[in-house]
Amino acid sequence: MKNKLIFEFSKEHTDGDASMINLLGGKGANLAEMSNLGISVPPGFTITTEVCNHFMEHNELPDSLDGEINDAVNKLVQYSGLSFDGKSNPLLLSVRSGGRISMPGMMDSILNIGLNDVNLSHLAEHFNDERFALDSYRRLIQMYSNVVLGLDYSRFEAVIENKKRIDNVSSDKDFNPDQLNWIIDAYKNTIERFSETPFPQDPKEQLTGAIKAVFSSWLNTRAVNYRKFNGIPDEWGTGATIQTMVFGNLNNNSGTGVAFTRNPSDGKKELFGEYLLNAQGEDVVAGIRTPKPISKHKTVKESLQDTFPDIYNEISNIAKTLESHFKEVQDIEFTIQDQKVYLLQTRKAKRTAQASVNIAIDMESEGVVTKEEAIMMVDADTITDLLHPQFVQNQDKELFTKALNASPGAAVGEIVFDADKAEEEAEKGKKIILVRDETSPEDIHGMYSSVGILTTKGGMTSHAAVVARGMGKPCVVGAEKLTLNFDEKTISNGDIVLSEGDVISLDGSLGEVYIDVLEVEPPSMSESFGKLMEYCDEYRKLSIRANAETELDTIKALEFGAEGIGLCRTEHMFFEGERIMPMREMIMADSPNGRKRALSKLIEFQTKDFETLFNLLKDKPITVRLLDPPMHEFLPKSDIEISNLAKESGVTTGYVGEILLKLSESNPMLGHRGVRLGLIYPEIYEMQVEAIFRAVHNLSQKEKTSINPEIMVPLVMNANELRQMKDILTTKIKEIESELNAKFSYTIGTMIELPSAALNSESIALEADFFSYGTNDLTQTTLGLSRDDAARFLGEYVERKVFSTDPFVSIDPSSVGKLVEMSSNNGKKANNELKIGVCGEHAGDPNSIFYLNTLNIDYISCSPFRIPAAKLAAAQAQLNK
Amino acid sequence: MKNKLIFEFSKEHTDGDASMINLLGGKGANLAEMSNLGISVPPGFTITTEVCNHFMEHNELPDSLDGEINDAVNKLVQYSGLSFDGKSNPLLLSVRSGGRISMPGMMDSILNIGLNDVNLSHLAEHFNDERFALDSYRRLIQMYSNVVLGLDYSRFEAVIENKKRIDNVSSDKDFNPDQLNWIIDAYKNTIERFSETPFPQDPKEQLTGAIKAVFSSWLNTRAVNYRKFNGIPDEWGTGATIQTMVFGNLNNNSGTGVAFTRNPSDGKKELFGEYLLNAQGEDVVAGIRTPKPISKHKTVKESLQDTFPDIYNEISNIAKTLESHFKEVQDIEFTIQDQKVYLLQTRKAKRTAQASVNIAIDMESEGVVTKEEAIMMVDADTITDLLHPQFVQNQDKELFTKALNASPGAAVGEIVFDADKAEEEAEKGKKIILVRDETSPEDIHGMYSSVGILTTKGGMTSHAAVVARGMGKPCVVGAEKLTLNFDEKTISNGDIVLSEGDVISLDGSLGEVYIDVLEVEPPSMSESFGKLMEYCDEYRKLSIRANAETELDTIKALEFGAEGIGLCRTEHMFFEGERIMPMREMIMADSPNGRKRALSKLIEFQTKDFETLFNLLKDKPITVRLLDPPMHEFLPKSDIEISNLAKESGVTTGYVGEILLKLSESNPMLGHRGVRLGLIYPEIYEMQVEAIFRAVHNLSQKEKTSINPEIMVPLVMNANELRQMKDILTTKIKEIESELNAKFSYTIGTMIELPSAALNSESIALEADFFSYGTNDLTQTTLGLSRDDAARFLGEYVERKVFSTDPFVSIDPSSVGKLVEMSSNNGKKANNELKIGVCGEHAGDPNSIFYLNTLNIDYISCSPFRIPAAKLAAAQAQLNK
Repeated sequence: MKNKLIFEFSKEHTDGDASMINLLGGKGANLAEMSNLGISVPPGFTITTEVCNHFMEHNELPDSLDGEINDAVNKLVQYSGLSFDGKSNPLLLSVRSGGRISMPGMMDSILNIGLNDVNLSHLAEHFNDERFALDSYRRLIQMYSNVVLGLDYSRFEAVIENKKRIDNVSSDKDFNPDQLNWIIDAYKNTIERFSETPFPQDPKEQLTGAIKAVFSSWLNTRAVNYRKFNGIPDEWGTGATIQTMVFGNLNNNSGTGVAFTRNPSDGKKELFGEYLLNAQGEDVVAGIRTPKPISKHKTVKESLQDTFPDIYNEISNIAKTLESHFKEVQDIEFTIQDQKVYLLQTRKAKRTAQASVNIAIDMESEGVVTKEEAIMMVDADTITDLLHPQFVQNQDKELFTKALNASPGAAVGEIVFDADKAEEEAEKGKKIILVRDETSPEDIHGMYSSVGILTTKGGMTSHAAVVARGMGKPCVVGAEKLTLNFDEKTISNGDIVLSEGDVISLDGSLGEVYIDVLEVEPPSMSESFGKLMEYCDEYRKLSIRANAETELDTIKALEFGAEGIGLCRTEHMFFEGERIMPMREMIMADSPNGRKRALSKLIEFQTKDFETLFNLLKDKPITVRLLDPPMHEFLPKSDIEISNLAKESGVTTGYVGEILLKLSESNPMLGHRGVRLGLIYPEIYEMQVEAIFRAVHNLSQKEKTSINPEIMVPLVMNANELRQMKDILTTKIKEIESELNAKFSYTIGTMIELPSAALNSESIALEADFFSYGTNDLTQTTLGLSRDDAARFLGEYVERKVFSTDPFVSIDPSSVGKLVEMSSNNGKKANNELKIGVCGEHAGDPNSIFYLNTLNIDYISCSPFRIPAAKLAAAQAQLNK
Repeated sequence: MKNKLIFEFSKEHTDGDASMINLLGGKGANLAEMSNLGISVPPGFTITTEVCNHFMEHNELPDSLDGEINDAVNKLVQYSGLSFDGKSNPLLLSVRSGGRISMPGMMDSILNIGLNDVNLSHLAEHFNDERFALDSYRRLIQMYSNVVLGLDYSRFEAVIENKKRIDNVSSDKDFNPDQLNWIIDAYKNTIERFSETPFPQDPKEQLTGAIKAVFSSWLNTRAVNYRKFNGIPDEWGTGATIQTMVFGNLNNNSGTGVAFTRNPSDGKKELFGEYLLNAQGEDVVAGIRTPKPISKHKTVKESLQDTFPDIYNEISNIAKTLESHFKEVQDIEFTIQDQKVYLLQTRKAKRTAQASVNIAIDMESEGVVTKEEAIMMVDADTITDLLHPQFVQNQDKELFTKALNASPGAAVGEIVFDADKAEEEAEKGKKIILVRDETSPEDIHGMYSSVGILTTKGGMTSHAAVVARGMGKPCVVGAEKLTLNFDEKTISNGDIVLSEGDVISLDGSLGEVYIDVLEVEPPSMSESFGKLMEYCDEYRKLSIRANAETELDTIKALEFGAEGIGLCRTEHMFFEGERIMPMREMIMADSPNGRKRALSKLIEFQTKDFETLFNLLKDKPITVRLLDPPMHEFLPKSDIEISNLAKESGVTTGYVGEILLKLSESNPMLGHRGVRLGLIYPEIYEMQVEAIFRAVHNLSQKEKTSINPEIMVPLVMNANELRQMKDILTTKIKEIESELNAKFSYTIGTMIELPSAALNSESIALEADFFSYGTNDLTQTTLGLSRDDAARFLGEYVERKVFSTDPFVSIDPSSVGKLVEMSSNNGKKANNELKIGVCGEHAGDPNSIFYLNTLNIDYISCSPFRIPAAKLAAAQAQLNK
């Protein structure tokens, strides 16, 4: 290898800096950065991730590494005045892993490298503490045996436990030197019995073994699985940081701790963390002793601030330096050795969504970061959580199942297996969680009545998921491990069987379901939240609209800052209560006149619905999509419902059955729907445009309005189809204009939701005032994936990296993305007045918004609860451009 | 209008020629061409189709037309020595329509223009025949009243019938002059009563009225519907040809006839046609008198050749001249006036498929046309008929229904409603027609046992259609007017109810079903047919392979000249007899080991199948597609079958039901199939490649072979997916190689049947040795059209011209075509070794082949029976390039 393999850090000389995270890993890069900043860091060096990759490929370290290590260690010897020859007062080293992204607890570290039988006494002498030296040696042998020699950890634990029992010692730290010497001998015997090589006495050999072991641990099963799950490429590799040891366990003026530069749970500006006196990092992690708080605390005494105010102030100052240097809240690890503070690590602090928003706005107002930087500090994916209730953290809970987190929020309620029952029970004041194999439009009233929804099938864009997100209700879908027995009214996961009426808690943010009553806290939209949204509005280029068709959703959408409605799905207006019957009548009619008769009942509802929406929106735009789903979606499925329908329509059940059979489809997704209905049964769309413009007219009678409905034709394949549909619509609109003696403003556009439409975008653009990409259906057809069926294999596909993310969650750039890009460019080229929007579920996904922001898109439209996330992502995307 | 509006033809001066068909219509252009050739044609002129379009747009003739007509008529007056002033011996004219494409009987003509009360006597005097003159006048008034004045034809028929009855006259031509005079008066009275304008006496006015009427008839309902049905654009318009009248009805040395320059039903080289003495064209059409044959006839006397050998020879010579000039068999109309022959029309003769092939080969061997021209003379769409039995023409028959002509040929048999029964009855020696709502893979054995298939649902690429074409069995699908009552075992169309065992006749070429036992004639693959195929092989660039997986199909395919198998659908091998049970066992197994156990039974069958195919193909290539359909396609649907399966597998019916539910899909087309099965259950594809190479190995033990199987992975979305699948396959192949101590040659490629695959073609090409476009599925996903459901609206879509043709019949160029073009280019650019084929149904469609031949495609693969058509189309496409 020709590249530099080692990067040193010390107050004397530092090679690296924070920008070299890919090469040095997060830990190594930040240690270098802290050295550069003059912060007290034990000197050391980092071996690059390239060496890790070389090791993985060739199963050996590069030839030149040995020399570089020697040079670097010699410098540490020189700085410390100690020796690494195994004979005199020893320089002790730690070896730790550290990749680009932290993988907590996944990989191995080894401490106290450099000790052996000979220099042990020098160490004891140096610190005047035999017990400390022996304990350090014991720890080294134990870690080394496990990590480097691959011996089972429990063998060494057994030695200790044994000795404790025999000598009646209660805790590790109570062993005296004799006992520790006995343990060290026993350890060595264990190694002799179970390993081919003895514990090496040569510090150099210890170090090489430790480095190899750290690199090897990149490929251990835990780490590989963790990376797979978190989408971290194997090729990134890990760095290995070799650092001079400092000892928090030296005496009672020593200690170790972790701290956040601000409170990670609410964002409050305070040094927040814990420390232990006379301890090493592993003692904090082990949880045997209870750590004390760092800052003064209401109830807990002996905070660091109380006990060592100077040290507290020193750490506090370092925290400030780091925060303003990194422009981010930091999560630091420190060690105090004889009242001297050393920083061992600093990294960006994980935090809750709420803390994240508060911190960003606080740091901006403190002048630490700019507005732009504040916007970039918040993770768009998480802020949706703030709009929903959440479970209080750290409650005891038993998992029932984990599945797809389809719609965020927390809900607790009694399970019910059908929509009618859900409505009934909810009316009694009960909180209900609706559990179904999958939902259909007929379940909508039950979903409205429930506080949460759980389905055993379907993916992130299944009916349940889409509707629940629209309603802002927590929803978990695709719980394939559960078996729903509808007849017996039970849902089970193996032996755990729940019955109707049992209470579960459902975490839609995590996709988890618990068999417990968990405590819920309300949503928390703070002042900072509002401010963040304001900032986003200043920077984003994309307009943000909402997908909404009910009064409630529209109010919510406007409250969250929607700039209009980008998708009003008119069919949702026909499923409820009194509307479904005339809808069914219409479907069962076998002539245009029969259909018109039934439609004349529906038009009243539809007109009123539009009046309500237009009135709420005032002069904000609204895109009304004409009827989209195939007819059979409106028809009943159960025998009882069929016989009811027959009775109410005055026909035989046989006739209803015939209609059902006639309308049934092998692949409804590719069936007789959208404009295909509009062209074959023009009276349906005619009724809909009539309702739109009667509503416009009625409102204009009451007040001065300027409503310009955008009429959207769904599922268009090519320009001929849109042209023909447009002719029918404009003819009808002219009729209404002449009847009402009015003149309406409107535009007519189309969904682009079939590859064919995208491929024909030039000619379609000549017929359309706007395009709106329906990226759900476009994903289904482009990839040949049914959103209702794909759950069966899509998870494994994402795991196997066939896709980098679920294509129903983020737009697949190489297929759907390519179509959107190509066709939006061609569309605008053909018609430079063309407005372009995206109204599929992807419009609420930050990843996809980043991608869409690079294209020729004017607006995106998502469910009301995704609007803040969309605004944030749109602003970030623009700032990142 | 600035352009020339009128083109004259006469032996003195001719403006146009045959190439001007778009401007003059077929009739006008060919009259001009015949004049140019010196063939005796009554002089005249043609008004252009542009005038027709002007007339349609402005509802009046262009200003300058009148002058041009006057000039042209004056020349005719001059040539004939007659007059058009209405006073002296009259020049009589005919006005006939004629578009680019003949629309027989759809539009109006008017004869004898120029006669009036005054010059009638001059005409009588000129021909010394008062009756003739009066009859001509009567005919003029009658036609004019109907066509120009819009009076009902029946009013004039009534006058004639009345007179016949009163005067006891048996035939029109038996009226004497007095009676004709009476009729003419009665006609004029009728006009006076029912029309606002009287019959015009001014020849000029008659002519203008007639011309307008001819142009108007372009827009009459009949003509509009005919054009819609035949895909003729309205904008083409019609020409109007005005021509000097000649009179076949003058005396017994006169007559009229039609003739084909060769026999249009078998192609024999003979003047073939009929004539009538003393008659006009309309008399032949009217069918009152029986015409005589033109050439000598075995049984019928008084052929033209017998009666007027000189005239026969003259016509025969003209026929030869025309044929060798036009390089096509001609269909001519002639009139003999006083032994002088006049040609009134010549056009390309319609002919049967068999005649078409024989004529092309004969004319080539006679040196009239080149090989290239011979190839272009045959309609690729029709020659498939020659491979199938056909109904004897002109039988009496009652139509039961007309639907989609899914697979050509004729079949007569008893109807049966399920596959098992079909097999049973067929084994008794009965001829069976299987009637289903739709077929599924489970019906295959029943389809094999039947002579024809009829389904009430589905389109041109439904399961029934595809499989029937593959089997070469006549099939009619999408018979939506029929109602199948499975319980009562009846199929009905309104009042006509047929029961199981009733006999029907099914014409798969026309899509017609009859309630009669019709006579069938066997297929006719002549020597000429073989020769034509040889010629095609010389010129075509595309390789032609077959879609086949059974021994029978493969034999057929090779017999028809397939150059290999381009699509071997392995799943078809699992549906039959003993195979379906282990297949189902495999599906019901809940572990890889369970699946492997079941697969170990299937591998025997599969290996033998491949041996059979490889042995037939020898060194010809074969593309084996790994399992494609979703699992549930193999599972039973009826309760009885389910309980059988449960019994045989030793599980409860409840368990089978659970599996069925678990595997059921909302949109199976977009479901868990193809490579998605291969990746999740790798043992299935592993078994399949093992079977392939065991077969290769077994054969190689017996003889020297060089089989290089092309292994095709279906339903790939992107390169990652193919790469992962390829890894699994090659690992398995290496295992088998090492087990058998063999080294196999093979390639691995993929179907391109999802838009996503097409859009990712560059990266996929780097992983693939070949692409094969599955244009069926690609059409379904690109257009979002389910082939099983689209029948409900696709017909109307084609009629409305949303598509120019059914996209399942011919590739939709603006969507699917664009994807194929783009992705094949990108694929070859990325990997210049890449082989590209097309194996969807479109590969057998001449239209699509023309399109595909313009792209970067190496081969196409179609059902065995489409191979000759594909070869012909491929040769034509290449010649046309």
